[in-house]
Parts: sequence; C-alpha cells; structure tokens
Amino acid sequence: MKNTAILLIKCPDRPGIVAAISSFLYRHGANIVDLDQHSTEDDPGVYFMRLELQTARLVVPLDTLRRSLGDEVAQPFGMEWSLEAGSDRKRVAVLVSRHDHALMELLWAGKRGELPAHVDLVVANHLDLREQVEAFGVPFHHVPNSREGRAEAEKQILTLLDGKVDLVVLARYMQIVSPEFVARFPNRIINIHHSFLPAFAGADPYRQAWEGGVKIVGATAHYVTADLDAGPIIEQDVGRVSHRHSVEDLKAMGRDLERRVLARAVKWHCENRVIVHENKTVVFV
Amino acid sequence: MKNTAILLIKCPDRPGIVAAISSFLYRHGANIVDLDQHSTEDDPGVYFMRLELQTARLVVPLDTLRRSLGDEVAQPFGMEWSLEAGSDRKRVAVLVSRHDHALMELLWAGKRGELPAHVDLVVANHLDLREQVEAFGVPFHHVPNSREGRAEAEKQILTLLDGKVDLVVLARYMQIVSPEFVARFPNRIINIHHSFLPAFAGADPYRQAWEGGVKIVGATAHYVTADLDAGPIIEQDVGRVSHRHSVEDLKAMGRDLERRVLARAVKWHCENRVIVHENKTVVFV
Amino acid sequence: MKNTAILLIKCPDRPGIVAAISSFLYRHGANIVDLDQHSTEDDPGVYFMRLELQTARLVVPLDTLRRSLGDEVAQPFGMEWSLEAGSDRKRVAVLVSRHDHALMELLWAGKRGELPAHVDLVVANHLDLREQVEAFGVPFHHVPNSREGRAEAEKQILTLLDGKVDLVVLARYMQIVSPEFVARFPNRIINIHHSFLPAFAGADPYRQAWEGGVKIVGATAHYVTADLDAGPIIEQDVGRVSHRHSVEDLKAMGRDLERRVLARAVKWHCENRVIVHENKTVVFV
Amino acid sequence: MKNTAILLIKCPDRPGIVAAISSFLYRHGANIVDLDQHSTEDDPGVYFMRLELQTARLVVPLDTLRRSLGDEVAQPFGMEWSLEAGSDRKRVAVLVSRHDHALMELLWAGKRGELPAHVDLVVANHLDLREQVEAFGVPFHHVPNSREGRAEAEKQILTLLDGKVDLVVLARYMQIVSPEFVARFPNRIINIHHSFLPAFAGADPYRQAWEGGVKIVGATAHYVTADLDAGPIIEQDVGRVSHRHSVEDLKAMGRDLERRVLARAVKWHCENRVIVHENKTVVFV
Repeated sequence: MKNTAILLIKCPDRPGIVAAISSFLYRHGANIVDLDQHSTEDDPGVYFMRLELQTARLVVPLDTLRRSLGDEVAQPFGMEWSLEAGSDRKRVAVLVSRHDHALMELLWAGKRGELPAHVDLVVANHLDLREQVEAFGVPFHHVPNSREGRAEAEKQILTLLDGKVDLVVLARYMQIVSPEFVARFPNRIINIHHSFLPAFAGADPYRQAWEGGVKIVGATAHYVTADLDAGPIIEQDVGRVSHRHSVEDLKAMGRDLERRVLARAVKWHCENRVIVHENKTVVFV
Repeated sequence: MKNTAILLIKCPDRPGIVAAISSFLYRHGANIVDLDQHSTEDDPGVYFMRLELQTARLVVPLDTLRRSLGDEVAQPFGMEWSLEAGSDRKRVAVLVSRHDHALMELLWAGKRGELPAHVDLVVANHLDLREQVEAFGVPFHHVPNSREGRAEAEKQILTLLDGKVDLVVLARYMQIVSPEFVARFPNRIINIHHSFLPAFAGADPYRQAWEGGVKIVGATAHYVTADLDAGPIIEQDVGRVSHRHSVEDLKAMGRDLERRVLARAVKWHCENRVIVHENKTVVFV
Repeated sequence: MKNTAILLIKCPDRPGIVAAISSFLYRHGANIVDLDQHSTEDDPGVYFMRLELQTARLVVPLDTLRRSLGDEVAQPFGMEWSLEAGSDRKRVAVLVSRHDHALMELLWAGKRGELPAHVDLVVANHLDLREQVEAFGVPFHHVPNSREGRAEAEKQILTLLDGKVDLVVLARYMQIVSPEFVARFPNRIINIHHSFLPAFAGADPYRQAWEGGVKIVGATAHYVTADLDAGPIIEQDVGRVSHRHSVEDLKAMGRDLERRVLARAVKWHCENRVIVHENKTVVFV
Repeated sequence: MKNTAILLIKCPDRPGIVAAISSFLYRHGANIVDLDQHSTEDDPGVYFMRLELQTARLVVPLDTLRRSLGDEVAQPFGMEWSLEAGSDRKRVAVLVSRHDHALMELLWAGKRGELPAHVDLVVANHLDLREQVEAFGVPFHHVPNSREGRAEAEKQILTLLDGKVDLVVLARYMQIVSPEFVARFPNRIINIHHSFLPAFAGADPYRQAWEGGVKIVGATAHYVTADLDAGPIIEQDVGRVSHRHSVEDLKAMGRDLERRVLARAVKWHCENRVIVHENKTVVFV
C-alpha cells in the first residue's frame, strides 16, 4: 500500500464523471491501479466509486492533488469524497465486555499485518481480558458500566477516544451505546451482532434460533446507528446446524462466525472499501 | 430400497429402547442396515429413532412384523411410530400458481428416479403451467381461486386429494390455505418460503431483503401449520448477494435456492427422514 | 440490455487508458453505467477492462463509434478488444450425449430469459434426448460418433455449426473433440467437467473422489483447449460429502453442481464478462 | 462429558450386532444417549459404530464393564474396539515451525474448553513461537531440524513424546516425518495440508492454485501415513477466489481455512468420532 492512495466518491450520477476524474489524475501523473464503481437504478441515480492510484510519479504532493481535485472535480460534480494515502493506517478502539474471541481475532490479524489498522486501545466494562490485551502491548482501559452510570461511563470513554481514533469496534460489547455517543462517530462504529439480522434481533439470539428450529445460524457486522441492531449491514456469514446442536453448540459455532465476519468488516472499512448510502452499504471487494 | 423397510419412532426417553427394538428385529430376521437416533436434553427427554432394516430374510410377512412390533415394543414404550416398506413411494400432489421452477424440479427429480415419490397430480389456480405439466404425463387440474371463492376452491381441491395423496407440496402456491385444509394433512403439507425465515416473513421477501441491504438471502422449506410462515422448518439454504444485485437478481438467485431447498425437503420427507416435535424437526440425514 | 453496449479490453498496462477511453466515450455521448478493471502484478502488467455504456444518446451510430474507437484509442494502446450491443444475443450450440441435466438447465434458463443467449441447435451422439429438446422448439441433430468415425462426425458437426454459432457448449458430451475442432472456436467452447479440477482429471471422477475419501466434491466449467481437461477455468463449485455417500450419491450431487456451474459460466460468457489470459480467466462479476 | 463413555467399534457386518451390544449395555445399567452406525456396501460389509453411554447407573465399574464387553461381545463378533470415559482428555503434542495460526487456534480452543483435549507440549524446529506458546502455560521444546539431522531430531522428539501423548498434530510443521516416526503413532498423527487434496499435493500449493487459475482453494486435515500427503482425509473446507487474489491473498485466506479445518479434525478425533478404514475415514458427526 506504499505509494498508493484511495479515492472514495459518492455523488449524483451524470455523464462525464469517469472522464473528469481519470483525465485529472492522468494530467497529475497518478496512474490508476484499481477502479470499481456502482450506480443505483433510481432516476436520477447515485454514483459511487473507489479508485486506487499510484502516487510514485505524482507531479504535485498528495495534499496539493487533494486540493486541486476538490476544486476542479469534486466541487463541480457535488461529490462527497475522501482521498487517503494507502500508508495511512486507521486508529482503532475496541470496546468489549467478557467475550474474547472477536477481540483476539482483531489483535491477531493486526499483529500478522493482515489489517491495515492499528488497535490503539481497548476499553472494557469488565476486567477479565486485561492480561490478554496487554500481552499484545495494547493499552487496556477498564470503564465499569451500568444502566444508571451509563452517561458517566460514556463520558469517560469519549475522553479516551475523542480525536484519537478513526474507528470504534464493538466486539461483543454488551452495553447499549447512547444516540449521543453514536452521533460522535457517524458511520465509524462497527458492531458484531450474533445473528443473521434482521432475524433474531434482541437478546439471546442463539437461544431464539434454537427455539425456532432454524437450520442455519449467522452473524452480522453493521454500522451502529441510533436505531439499535438496524444500522447498515457490512457483512454477514452463516453456518449449518441441525437438531443435534444445543444452544451451547450454536454459541460455539457463532463465536467462529462472529470473529470472521467482524474481522472482514473491519478490514474492508480500514481499506476504504465501504460507502454508506441511506441504510445500506456499497462494499467494493 | 427394495427389500428394506423404514421404522420411525418418537417416545419418552428411558433405558432399554434400543435393546428392545434391536432384539425384536433380530429375533424376526430383520437385519439393521442403518440406524440414527436423537434425544432431547429435557428431563425426561424425548427419544427419536430412524431405523432402516432388510426384509429379505424376515421370518414373518411385514404386516405381521408390524403388528407384533406394535404389541410387543411400541405399545409398552408409548411410541408414536410407523413402519413402511422402502418400496412404497409416497403419492404427492403439488399446488402451484404461475412460477414453474420449484414444480419442474420436482417433476424432473421424479423422472430421474431421484425422488422416492410419485407426483400424482398438479393443482393450479392459473392455467400457465398446464402444458409443461402434461408433458411429464402428470394430470393438471385448474382450480381458480380468489379471496371470496377460497372456501369453494379448497373444497374442490380436497375432493381431488382426499385419500389419494400422502403429501401436499406448495411449490410457490400464492394462496393462503385455511386452518381447516391444514388440519386435514397434519405435518403432510410442505411449503417453500422465499426467505430465510424467520427473516422477511410476509409479502415480497426479496424486496424486503433488498431494502434491508442484507448480504445473504435464503429460502426455507417448512411444514404448514395454522400459523402462517411459522411451521416446523425442514431445510434452509442461502446465497451471497451484494450492492450490485437488483430485486430482480435476488429473485433469480432465489428461484435457484427455492427449487433446491424444496427438492431436498420433499426427498427427505418421502424417505421418512423427518420427525416433527413441537415446532421443530428432527431430520435424520 | 436494450440501449446498452459492452466494451471488453485487454492491452499492455500503462498510464492513461481509463482517461483515453472515458473521454472518448463522453465526447460521443456514451454514458458509462458499469466499469470494472484489473491489472496483473507483472511489470509491465496486462490491463483488462469491462465497460457497459448507454447508447441511447450516442451522437453517432454504434458502428461508427466502433470504427472511431478502433482508430483513436484501441490501435494506439495496442488493445485486443470488442464492442457489442447489449441486445445482441449470442447464438449457442449445445453438444450432448445422454445426460440431460446440464442441457435442460440451459434450455430452461433460456426460456425464462435468464440467459442472454439463444440455443439455436443441439447436437447429440445419442438419440435419447430428442424429445426433450424438441419440446423447447430447438432443432435436434443426431450425429453418431465413435473412435473410428470421429473425424467424419466432427466434419458433420462443423457443417452444422460453422458461421452459425458464437459459442459451443459441451454439456456432458462424452466424446473427445479434436485439436482441429477446438482451433475453430478459440475460447468459444465451454465444457463442464465433473470434478473440482485439477483434482480427478480423467475418467469417472466421482468414483475417484469416492475412492479417495474426499469430504468435498465439485464441478468445473472451463474453456476447451487442445490440452484435455486443462483449459482456462471459468467457474467452480463444491458440495460436502461424507462416508455415507455412495458413488451414486456423489453423481446425483454432482449433477446439481454441474448444471449450476455450467449455467453460470455460459451466462457470464454470453454477458461478455470473461476475458482469457494465458491459461486463466478474468471474470468480471 | 462427565458420567459418559464412548464406545467405538469396527467389525465384519452381520446380523445381531446392535442387539448384542444394546442388550449387554442395558443389562449393565448403561443407558445409550447417542448412537451412530455405518456399513460399507461391500459383501460382506464392514460395520462401524459410535455409541455414547451414561455411566452414572452402571452396575459395575467401567473397567469391569470393559472386560465383560470384550469377552461377551467384542471377541465373538471379531471387533476392533475401544471404550473410553468421556472425562478422559486426550494428551496432545503439537509440532510446528514458524506459522502460528493453526497452533494458536488449538491453544485457544483448549483454553475455552472447546477441545476435549490438553495440549501438553509444543515442539518446534524454530524459536519464533516460544513466547506465544509459553503465554498459554504450555511447555515449548526447540528441536532444530535439517535434512541431514532429521534422524537425530526425530529421536529427540520421540523421547519427548513417547508414552506421554495420545495424539500428535502437525500444525504446519514444515518437515517430512520418517516412516519410522509415523509407525510409532498409527492413525494418531494429524496433519493440516494447505490445499484441497488430492489437488496441489507437493510444495507451495497456493502458488500452484494461483497459477492454475482455480476459483476455489481449500485445506485438508488428514492422518499421516508413510505415503506423503495421501493419508486418510478427516476434513476439508474451501473458499472462493477470483482473478483479483494474489498468491499472498490465497495464503491469507488459506490460513483461515487451515486453522478451522485442523481444529475441527482434532476436535472430532479427541471426541472419538473418527474411525479409519483402509485409506478413508468414517466421521460420526
């Protein structure tokens, strides 16, 4: 990812977008190495693009390119957009409770270089995982939580995070976060839900699944919005079950699904592959 | 399946069930070729068994064996049970509307000998599929239906089916069947629902799925009960989708899922592999 | 697909390709509705592009656009390329022997409008499937084949196909086609192989799989080259098996895999989504 | 698993096996809680059974039951068999080189109680993973290896393992083990191979897969025999790839497949679910 940059675009669809961008980049010495796009079928539609470019032969610094691109292309086309250097690793905070599987997967993937991100801190409302987290050299903050003390706890957490992280991951954080908290990180909080939403929203989804006698269980990673368990879905995966599986078996299988689904969603977000549109996502993979 | 018989059992769990059955069968010259069992974790639990036996060396006719088994084993243990010759092919009626994919799959599987069943008739509330059905040499009955005329239509259908079929399959039959109709075929009506229930129950599930931005769609085969879209699930399957898929794309993918899920469920039912317990199924595959 | 056209490109990678094409199209009133690209990691790399454009507001006829594109863009960049109207349906010939499943799937998909192609004729070295084919209104040609008479049979088949079809599909055609035959349809013959190649090339792959005790079986659709069972792979899929599956069970499962894998590969080819490069494919889906 | 025992059986198929075993167990107060069986289709066939029984109300100690079962049932029927207490956790040694993913998965699963086994020691021919292993409180032994020094290294390893472990797991151990070593642990060495065998046996399978342009990659867990990469397969799994995946991408996806496939195989072995027959496995799950 050295010497590359990622351009993400969302704008009203109209002729000439690709020509305008690609010509601009060509004139500035930015070779396109990957390009993906999508348009909704509405009329007028919405246009989405992800473009990866080489920066080694840029005729201006990346910051200058960004300014010119804004003035000459993004502004005239009414774009929401970002241009980030591929070497920029997103700063991530993980919020957890007692379950370790989803958190460990992220710490591991980070250590192996499979995640273009850096887990800068972990915040937990229980102490159980302190040792495991610190073994990775990552700071662990214990912020107890409760229905009554939630406002105070969130305030503490915000002090730890504000301005310091690009993404908040709820890795089985068993607390409801307030609309005010969510509003501080729009489309920048990812939660892993232990069911294939919209099935089994609410408490104890594996027990609901077992009682419903389904033959498939799943997990869902989504952006957190004020509407609980209903934010834009980034990724889902499922596994087959039978009458032989107990609730405990479903939970064990679910742990494997959850960690993998969450890891993929976090990876894609950190690689700038996800654009939110209304209550859905465009994921360029 | 020639020279075999299938024993299905459901009873209160207690010690000695396997010993009683296997000793009885051994004494009567019935060799066990397949045996599968399951117990619920409740206390007392419920015991389920599927047993496939060879009948070539039976010392008594199958009917006599059935009577003796009833008296000597099934009755003392309080069993719900059945013993069917493997050569018995279930007689199936398929109810359809306009979609052909699920119906064709069943007719085809039957023709290839992949289904231990015989589709004896097709009942449709539209005329579209007459030619395709009759090409398989299967009688096609047109029974128009409407909200007002439902009672009359069901009466006509019952006249066609009663006493003549062992299983009714709703292969995308776009009509609600009445509780009275369902009561005539307890655990003997299989429906294919075009979503991974319990998600997207109700109308137009592919549009619901598309609007919800899910990354996985599915289909569900279940026994029909008085409670719409909530009968015991026999089989489910899913496919991955992305932002690129339109509602039409989901429907096309769904057609492939539906036909395969329904064909598997019907096959398992006809092979006597499914036992219903409360609102769930035990499927011995 | 009305009022659209598909541009496929393969050329040496270098800066400015996207700018050149998109500017050319913009100047001629061709709005881009879909664009996908890929570059190999070699240095210099190879560049691939699939571009879908609207033709409703073209300022020149499509033929004129094609000529200008050739002169102004394709020639300078050294492109192998094609530009086809989205309304063009490829003409397909299917070669079969006795198995009907893969053939029926294509005829069905065609009838439902799921395949942007038209099956113009079926050639078989056995008579078994005549009735089923003619029921779809498709001409059926019986060309017996044998090791000794292969040259003569292929000559007959070529007379039937030459200049009349865009794609030849081997839907479980149990005959070896000669290198001369293959050479007449470069990258335009698709075969379905009943294993997850490169495993179990050669005869009776399901028996090989059963004897090898694998836990997964598969099917592979590939372009046919002079090198038997080794042409560029377009699509593969798999299913799980266990010790309970007999060779016959593997074959039955395989039939389902084969028909779906082949149908996808044919669909993608007919939608101009596949580009062959050396012994591999780029599939833009 | 407290108060349960697992009976595994393999013998020539003949009438009366189930009756003999179940009657024997019933007489001794051993309630059957799970029972699975399989027969090959050969004539005479081979019979396999896995039976889980409750030991709480046994009328004799488990050791006495084992002796009686041997005399009264196993011997007359010519059985290969074992009867193990469910509380017995197998003692496992893991051999590794530098890759940590498969090893970590096992250590983690063990820590969570998902594996009915205890990793007693890790042997590595490199030092890289010492710290990670010891963090789990598991002894780490460094035994350097090389083509010339293999005999000596294996001797050292045997000294560490002999009589002390029930299972040896090769968790990406990049050394060939000798036929003599294998002979010491018949059907008790599990290896994870990084391809869907029999495809891509040999070195660098992900590169082979990439060069072959396959659309699916996989991993295989198998028992190690003298015949390299060809021992009885216990479990396999696969993932989809496209032209976008580099060799490095395949390796990353492969790591996820390998760890999961190996963990499942080890779990099933330790739960006494696997019986080897010739070059294949019967896996009762």
